Amino acid sequence: DAHKLLVLAGDGIGPEVMREVARIVHWMSAHRGLKLEITEELVGAASLAAHGVPIRDEVIELARQSDAVLFGSVGDPAWSHVGFDKRPEVAILKLRKELELFANLRPAKLFDALIDASALKPEVVRGLDLMIVRETVGGIYFGEPRGIETLPDGSRRGINTEVYTTSEIERVARVAFDLARKRDNRVCSVEKCNVMESGLLWKEVVTDIHKREYSDVQLSHMLADNCAMQLVRDPNQFDVIVTGNLFGDILSDLASMLTGSLGMLPSATLGPARADGKRNALYEPIHGSAPDIAGKGIANPLAQILSFAMLLRYSLNRGEDADLIETAVSNVLASGLRTGDIMSPGMARVGTEMMGQAVLRE
Amino acid sequence: DAHKLLVLAGDGIGPEVMREVARIVHWMSAHRGLKLEITEELVGAASLAAHGVPIRDEVIELARQSDAVLFGSVGDPAWSHVGFDKRPEVAILKLRKELELFANLRPAKLFDALIDASALKPEVVRGLDLMIVRETVGGIYFGEPRGIETLPDGSRRGINTEVYTTSEIERVARVAFDLARKRDNRVCSVEKCNVMESGLLWKEVVTDIHKREYSDVQLSHMLADNCAMQLVRDPNQFDVIVTGNLFGDILSDLASMLTGSLGMLPSATLGPARADGKRNALYEPIHGSAPDIAGKGIANPLAQILSFAMLLRYSLNRGEDADLIETAVSNVLASGLRTGDIMSPGMARVGTEMMGQAVLRE
Ligand SMILES: CC(C)[C@H](C(=O)O)[C@@H](O)C(=O)O
Ligand SMILES: CC(C)[C@H](C(=O)O)[C@@H](O)C(=O)O
Repeated sequence: DAHKLLVLAGDGIGPEVMREVARIVHWMSAHRGLKLEITEELVGAASLAAHGVPIRDEVIELARQSDAVLFGSVGDPAWSHVGFDKRPEVAILKLRKELELFANLRPAKLFDALIDASALKPEVVRGLDLMIVRETVGGIYFGEPRGIETLPDGSRRGINTEVYTTSEIERVARVAFDLARKRDNRVCSVEKCNVMESGLLWKEVVTDIHKREYSDVQLSHMLADNCAMQLVRDPNQFDVIVTGNLFGDILSDLASMLTGSLGMLPSATLGPARADGKRNALYEPIHGSAPDIAGKGIANPLAQILSFAMLLRYSLNRGEDADLIETAVSNVLASGLRTGDIMSPGMARVGTEMMGQAVLRE
Repeated sequence: DAHKLLVLAGDGIGPEVMREVARIVHWMSAHRGLKLEITEELVGAASLAAHGVPIRDEVIELARQSDAVLFGSVGDPAWSHVGFDKRPEVAILKLRKELELFANLRPAKLFDALIDASALKPEVVRGLDLMIVRETVGGIYFGEPRGIETLPDGSRRGINTEVYTTSEIERVARVAFDLARKRDNRVCSVEKCNVMESGLLWKEVVTDIHKREYSDVQLSHMLADNCAMQLVRDPNQFDVIVTGNLFGDILSDLASMLTGSLGMLPSATLGPARADGKRNALYEPIHGSAPDIAGKGIANPLAQILSFAMLLRYSLNRGEDADLIETAVSNVLASGLRTGDIMSPGMARVGTEMMGQAVLRE
């Protein structure tokens, strides 16, 4: 039986890097018996241009019925003044919310071959391998009331609401604790409980579930401002970090930049277990649509390729195929090929397509 | 006429580092004709222990009537489970709110002598000198509704509200633009307008006032997650960053850690111009109360000393005295003295008191 895969390349460099994944899919179908039933759809600015909305309801329905979604990236400055409902970003926000993709797993892992690309000193960043588990369907991203209101005197007020419930916190904490057990068994929970009651509840609920179900895992707590500092000072102190939507957005981007290889890092976003035993899942690179370099053929396709490897491993249960891809990527890096974002002296600069084909050859 | 100064040393290392400022005040009274009428009061955990509240109303009143407030730091793990109203942190939050101290100026400046203390590579951080202007009386720190509510089924919900009004955004933007004119004339405004309407309004208002009053200053906009990344990738791209309360909290801590000398960095928080032409102002180090090293005599007093220098310059109009202190600090660093936080090979490790006295000798 073929697995149903929905491919949403999106904007900017999305379609370019996705093309390199397509080559790999093609090869795997021919040589590894991979059977995929692939549907491609437009999202983001591409969908806005074609259909007037960032994502159509049919596409969300398709995503729901797929075994996995492979996502590129959305965002386009051309649409940034058109209106809040017509942001390309609505596509990914709606997918997360509608499919209840609540746990975004964002590894920040240093590729040894790329240690020179980091802004941090080698002795600070060497061996870095942490995982941020970010809650993605709650918090200030979705809370009501929200909006901009005009006051009687003509001035305006912008409002957003951060809301977290016990069960939202519990389920994402569970994902973090489960992951930690397979890693270094340490979780650091991050909030701003000295200022925000939602953070205070976050801390209490995490503490509570730890006591009840995960007392074998080492748990610590950290304020978000301190966490940002500690990530720069000594990132190797962390194993798994679990945090809310907004802090997770900022801290995971920061953490991945520490590795110097943002263009290398994949992510997975998981929903709850479904009735059929599977769970909805979406895979996407951590990097954005990078409109400044789109269409130039110089984007790094490795994060998208590695996102596909994660998809094979976690949603299709094809760990061996995932290994094949990950090893190929390592080998290509070891051979000295680099796209511009991870370039360093003495290496060979290649474009998107050459990098993709090098992986394929391996 | 004597200037009225309110000294609030607070918790943890606060009182230790403040003692070193006291020596300098003493010297300046004797040798530089500095006339200060100093009142000292308890805040934070120290006030909680003595009076049952993190700050008494009388102390807020005193602060209002002072020419400047010199603040140490608040926060103590012993009080972290006692209740949300009994957080030591309430002291600084109330002072900011009640005195309308809306613009927190946080420099992230590299001391050349300390370049080795940074986790960043020297070539990335060399010459770093940026200023974060953080809004401090609005946003999610103070918005209503807030709290933790229990739902009918026994589960709970934590709520906080981010609110920004046109005028709150305008006045802090003005501070940033005015500062930029005295620096490198560039402002980067940071929000999360692709997700939050309050960020969208922020961006619109900043754009608008720029067009009307500050079109000579170069203005750019950046999303908060991207800003966290860019601060690590290439912090020298920034001159002045202006942002809201929560993003400012995280990004300014991050920025100051980049310099490797958190223990060196002062900050000023300014209120609106008063009827008497002065403005309320509070000066405090960027670092916190550091309970882990409190009482050991090893804390770095330089951030507190430099905060006092800022106070002399901005609130008492004594720029020469401020220069004296800042030069003394430079000389002490150049002579190789280091507290533990900024220690590097070949330097001489000293404690709080020796560092303070070294500055005094200079
Ligand atoms: C595109 C944007 C809405 C999104 C977010 O803020 O969640 C992105 O920054 C991310 O981290 O996936
Ligand atoms: C102590 C705390 C309430 C405070 C804040 O979050 O504003 C501190 O982190 C700061 O940055 O001054």
